[in-house]
Amino acid sequence: MPAIKPDRVLADLYKLRTFGEYKTGVHRPTFSDVDIAAREWTVDRMREAGLTAEVDGIGNILGRSPAKGRIMLSGSHLESQNHAGWLDGPLGVIYALEASRAIAESGSANGVDVVVLCDEEGHFGSFLGSRSFMDILKEEDIDHARDRTTGETMRDALKRAGYAGRPRVHIDTKRHSGFFEAHIEQGDTLEQSGFKIGVVTAIVAIWQYKITVTGEQNHAGTTGMARRRDAGLALVRLLAAIDKKFPEIAGPRSVWTTGRITLDPGGPSVIPGGAEALFQLRDADPKVLERMDVALQELCAAANKTERCVLKVDRRSASTPALMNEGLQKALDAAAEKSAPGKHMRMPSGAGHDAQYMAREIPAAMMFVPSIGGISHHWTENTSDEDIVLGAQVFADAIEAALKA
Amino acid sequence: MPAIKPDRVLADLYKLRTFGEYKTGVHRPTFSDVDIAAREWTVDRMREAGLTAEVDGIGNILGRSPAKGRIMLSGSHLESQNHAGWLDGPLGVIYALEASRAIAESGSANGVDVVVLCDEEGHFGSFLGSRSFMDILKEEDIDHARDRTTGETMRDALKRAGYAGRPRVHIDTKRHSGFFEAHIEQGDTLEQSGFKIGVVTAIVAIWQYKITVTGEQNHAGTTGMARRRDAGLALVRLLAAIDKKFPEIAGPRSVWTTGRITLDPGGPSVIPGGAEALFQLRDADPKVLERMDVALQELCAAANKTERCVLKVDRRSASTPALMNEGLQKALDAAAEKSAPGKHMRMPSGAGHDAQYMAREIPAAMMFVPSIGGISHHWTENTSDEDIVLGAQVFADAIEAALKA
Repeated sequence: MPAIKPDRVLADLYKLRTFGEYKTGVHRPTFSDVDIAAREWTVDRMREAGLTAEVDGIGNILGRSPAKGRIMLSGSHLESQNHAGWLDGPLGVIYALEASRAIAESGSANGVDVVVLCDEEGHFGSFLGSRSFMDILKEEDIDHARDRTTGETMRDALKRAGYAGRPRVHIDTKRHSGFFEAHIEQGDTLEQSGFKIGVVTAIVAIWQYKITVTGEQNHAGTTGMARRRDAGLALVRLLAAIDKKFPEIAGPRSVWTTGRITLDPGGPSVIPGGAEALFQLRDADPKVLERMDVALQELCAAANKTERCVLKVDRRSASTPALMNEGLQKALDAAAEKSAPGKHMRMPSGAGHDAQYMAREIPAAMMFVPSIGGISHHWTENTSDEDIVLGAQVFADAIEAALKA
Repeated sequence: MPAIKPDRVLADLYKLRTFGEYKTGVHRPTFSDVDIAAREWTVDRMREAGLTAEVDGIGNILGRSPAKGRIMLSGSHLESQNHAGWLDGPLGVIYALEASRAIAESGSANGVDVVVLCDEEGHFGSFLGSRSFMDILKEEDIDHARDRTTGETMRDALKRAGYAGRPRVHIDTKRHSGFFEAHIEQGDTLEQSGFKIGVVTAIVAIWQYKITVTGEQNHAGTTGMARRRDAGLALVRLLAAIDKKFPEIAGPRSVWTTGRITLDPGGPSVIPGGAEALFQLRDADPKVLERMDVALQELCAAANKTERCVLKVDRRSASTPALMNEGLQKALDAAAEKSAPGKHMRMPSGAGHDAQYMAREIPAAMMFVPSIGGISHHWTENTSDEDIVLGAQVFADAIEAALKA
């Protein structure tokens, strides 16, 4: 049985926090100087653990185990959101490294390859590292990628980091019998129930919408209420109707969010002639998503009958849920039951993760540890040392069991 | 009786349109080169009409009549909103000039002073010209004024125009027995009823609000609906509640407008932690405004009991309605009845006008002519030549009658 070393796990995580430390979190955007330094430091740790490792041509790192037996793949990402948490990403990298080390130290013939996937946080695009690793990212995609904040092209950033021109590493479906990713929960379901381990059943699908309303811009003083074609008001009414209807038709874990509302032109004395909202649905069940989609279109059609504006609901993207492998979930269940009896549960992941790409080619699994207060994407994000250590052991045990299965 | 000259009125208005012509409208911001040229052209027309006139130290123009009898004051503004209509402002200036000319030509002992008030459209501030003319504008107010679009200070603009250092002219309450302003309606009440003349009863008060909602920013995937403190959703619900309640308590001509909604941070996958709306009320009756204000605060208080967010309604400004003088209104009624029998009505002005400042010191009146399609603040704003000519005669007749009263 692999025995993880708590001090080593915590020391590695604490060390990673020093790259771009911000209050109790980190500010480590993809290919920032601290991010590049963190990647180099991680390569050194992998080599120290006996893995052959190098940063590849897009910033991914594949640390290959010398083991002659079966090989499991495990990992996550290193970069952070802006001024965000220290564990979102690094936890999964260090858990993978620790599992690799502990399993090697246990004298097993099997081994763990550790992968660091670049830009999961989307500074340059959408899962560029995972897509490169799955060999579904074209060179043109990299050509077009650009830092959303600084405007730097990904090509320039790769050159600056010294990664330009290197080959890109890819998944080896013959070698990699499965993928395990650990992550903070980013919600408070575990904390609220007093549980320590979440075994992810599926990574939810995200359906993104743009709601557009066209009315008539006019003077807010001289245009009577009856004559107005107020695009903002029509949008408010539609959003209020969604808020009323959706609880009736949503699944128990469905979420729907209006992240942005824009009124045009936006002056205090002008009746908005245009209005826009960014709206999204998430659920692990495509049938539920379909039902919500239909309801959304129906509410829009109903609004078009009563409003003096034209409302349009455009679906901009619709991903499919990524189902986690049942066998690997059982390995996680069993390992959690051993270290935290009765304190683990199955749950979907509301957030996207690199594992959703791995799941397209090989059996994949994800394990969550509790987030204090459910806080995520903020520098106050945290998990207790005790929970971090417990999670590391469960994770290594599950990988070992899966390698033996 | 004064006889206005239709061709002269139309020629002057057409000529003014050439200063900053944009499609069928004009783009003539305050102190743009075309605006300065239009002011100089207007001074020449005033002198031609026998008035002594000069642009003053803030860009106002007071053309003084040589008449020995009673003197009425009349005028409006010359600058336009960006890419806006050709008559919004100039109509009132040329009607005043024509009334002055026609009354002088009729051999009357009485006369009309013509005033052009600077920046009614608010490129640099709020009614700076009117406030200067009423002698309630300090030099410091001018020091701080800056073009909202270009950023140029008003001091620099005045220097560039050649007006810096000139004295500022003020109302003379002993000389000016009243003020008449003509303007396009900017709504479609006249057009819809087939009427030609609107006699303004009051210029409505505007009460401005900022609605602020504080919730908790969180991940739109990992935060369940029950746990959310979605500031954007709480705002949408409050706005929907206002939309439902206000028709019950508003007056027949009340208007209320949400001009801007901002969600913070505004990302598609982030539950808004903050939300803001700019909201305003307009009515000519302070009791109605008070009632709407109370209802707004009650709806906010009710929301604070049911929402998991903190909602605040801050009143940022509250003007008082400017009542038009009853005697001058009767003069307009009678003049309109003569030229357009049965086709005139009394109505409040939903928009603010220079007359609201004049009304503080002397009897003031406003007259509206129809706006085609009710369009305002857009280059397609228009009024038929026939209605322009009719309005000019009614206006001159009313001023003549008021001078004799």
